[in-house]
Amino acid sequence: MEKSRLFNSEEQRVLEEIILNRRDVRGNHFLDKPIEDDVLEKILMAGLNAPSVGFSQPWEFVVIKDKDIRNKIKKSFETESAKAAELFEDEKQKEYIKLKLEGITESPLNIAVYYVPKKGPVLGQTSMPDMGRFSVTCAIQNMWLMSRALNVGMGWVSILDPKEVAKVINAPDSHELIGYLCFGYTDMFYEKPELEILKWDERKYKDDVVFYEKYQ
Amino acid sequence: MEKSRLFNSEEQRVLEEIILNRRDVRGNHFLDKPIEDDVLEKILMAGLNAPSVGFSQPWEFVVIKDKDIRNKIKKSFETESAKAAELFEDEKQKEYIKLKLEGITESPLNIAVYYVPKKGPVLGQTSMPDMGRFSVTCAIQNMWLMSRALNVGMGWVSILDPKEVAKVINAPDSHELIGYLCFGYTDMFYEKPELEILKWDERKYKDDVVFYEKYQ
Repeated sequence: MEKSRLFNSEEQRVLEEIILNRRDVRGNHFLDKPIEDDVLEKILMAGLNAPSVGFSQPWEFVVIKDKDIRNKIKKSFETESAKAAELFEDEKQKEYIKLKLEGITESPLNIAVYYVPKKGPVLGQTSMPDMGRFSVTCAIQNMWLMSRALNVGMGWVSILDPKEVAKVINAPDSHELIGYLCFGYTDMFYEKPELEILKWDERKYKDDVVFYEKYQ
Repeated sequence: MEKSRLFNSEEQRVLEEIILNRRDVRGNHFLDKPIEDDVLEKILMAGLNAPSVGFSQPWEFVVIKDKDIRNKIKKSFETESAKAAELFEDEKQKEYIKLKLEGITESPLNIAVYYVPKKGPVLGQTSMPDMGRFSVTCAIQNMWLMSRALNVGMGWVSILDPKEVAKVINAPDSHELIGYLCFGYTDMFYEKPELEILKWDERKYKDDVVFYEKYQ
C-alpha cells in the first residue's frame, strides 16, 4: 500500500494562516495589474481538484477579461443593488449605500462559475438535490484559498441577476450561476472581515454555534 | 496601514498539496482512535473562519460522538441508499451496491452542519437566495482541508433524509441540514478519488470545463 502524505504542524499552521487571512476584496482595493497566466492556472487547478458529489465535477468556469462584458455585468449589479438597498431600513440602508460591494471592473479578471446538472441520477445527490450546487461551492472555496495563498484578492459578487449574467455571456438555460468571482492584486488585505470592522454584523464564536450530541 | 501577510511559494505549495491530497474517507478506512480535543478545535476554527455572505455566519455545528445517535443516523442512510440503488440501472446498480459510501459508526466523531436562515434581509443574499447555504458549504470545505492537514480523514454523507436526521438530534424546523460529516484517523488516504480509481466517472480537465469570455 502506497504511503499517504502526512502533514506536519508547520504545514498545518500555513493552512490556518491562509484561512485566517482570506478576505472578500472589493473594487476599492484592487490594483491595475494583470493576473499572470500561471497564477490563473493555479487558481483553476484548485477549483478542478475540489470534492464533488459522486465525482460528478458538475462545474464550468468562464474566465472573463473583456472590459465590455464586465461593464455589462456591472449594470446588473447596479440594478440589483439598488433594489437591495430598498430592503434595508433607516440607518442600515444608509450604511448599505455607502459600502463598496464589488470589484467587477476594477479587477482585471472575473470568473463566472456555473453548476451544470448531470442527466440521470448522481451518486450521493439522490436524497439531497442541492449536493451538486454545494460541490461547485467547494470548488469556489478552494479557489478563494489558493488565490489568497498567491497573494491575489478575490471577491464573490452575489448581488447580480443570474438571468442577466447568462444573457451577457450566452450561458445555456441548463446552467446555473453559483458564483461570480473577481480576482486581482490588492493594495492590502484587511486584518478582519470588512463587515466586522464596520460593525455591520457581529462575529459568532464557538459557544454561539457549536452544540454537542443534539439540540436541547 | 498595517502590512498584510504575504505567502511565499513554499507556502503556496503546501496548500496545493493539501488540496490535491484531500479525499472523501469512508468507514472501511477509519481507525478506532479518538479525535483529540485540540484537533477538533482546529477543525471547528476552520469552519468558523469561513467566508459568509454579508458576514452572516449562518452556521451551526452539532458535534456527535454518542454511538446510539450515530446508529440512528445510520438507519436513515440505509433507507435512503436502498432507495438510491433503485435509480441506477444494470451494471451501475451492481457497482453502487458494492460501494462503501459512509463511515457514520466507524468514525469516532460526526458533525452535522446546519444552515440557520436569518430573519430579515441579508446583505448579498437579496438576489441569490442560496448564498446562505453556500456560505455554510464554504465552512465545510474549510473544515475538510483543515482536517486533511491534520491527517484526519473526513467523509461527507449526503445519502440521508434531513428530516430523519432532524428528528434524531432535535434540530429545529427553521434549520436546514447542509452536510453530515464523519471524522477519524485513517489507515491511508487514496492517491486519487476512490470513484476515479473505480472508474465510476471520468476526471474532467481544464479543457473540458473552462471557457473564455463567453459561451459560444
